[in-house]
Amino acid sequence: MTQYVFEMGMTCNGCANAARKVLGKLGEDKIKIDDINVETKKITVTTDLPASDVLEALKKTGKEIKQLQ
Amino acid sequence: MTQYVFEMGMTCNGCANAARKVLGKLGEDKIKIDDINVETKKITVTTDLPASDVLEALKKTGKEIKQLQ
Repeated sequence: MTQYVFEMGMTCNGCANAARKVLGKLGEDKIKIDDINVETKKITVTTDLPASDVLEALKKTGKEIKQLQ
Repeated sequence: MTQYVFEMGMTCNGCANAARKVLGKLGEDKIKIDDINVETKKITVTTDLPASDVLEALKKTGKEIKQLQ
């Protein structure tokens, strides 16, 4: 399991929920959402999936997104 | 060309921009965004595409979405 941190252009709780929903579609057994913080715009997850899969899912929201670590 | 109206769970301008971005991916020549209103949560577009294509694109944002007309 690897922990990744992404920065996403979230500006409200609705944005955070959108991120939560698309990440959930990856499979609740496949990815653990450690934190979604609208203030810092950071999304932290732990998963065995490649970071690129997570990035692709988050990109679908239409928000600016980049991987920080 | 047909005009469709959708209701989407937008709660900020970031949400509206996300909608704008995913609709743009359908092709600027294929769909005209007539209005995106965060207050009324309504998205109005004119297109030759089937409404289902527009709905699918908007669903990717992770927001609640339904077609009104």
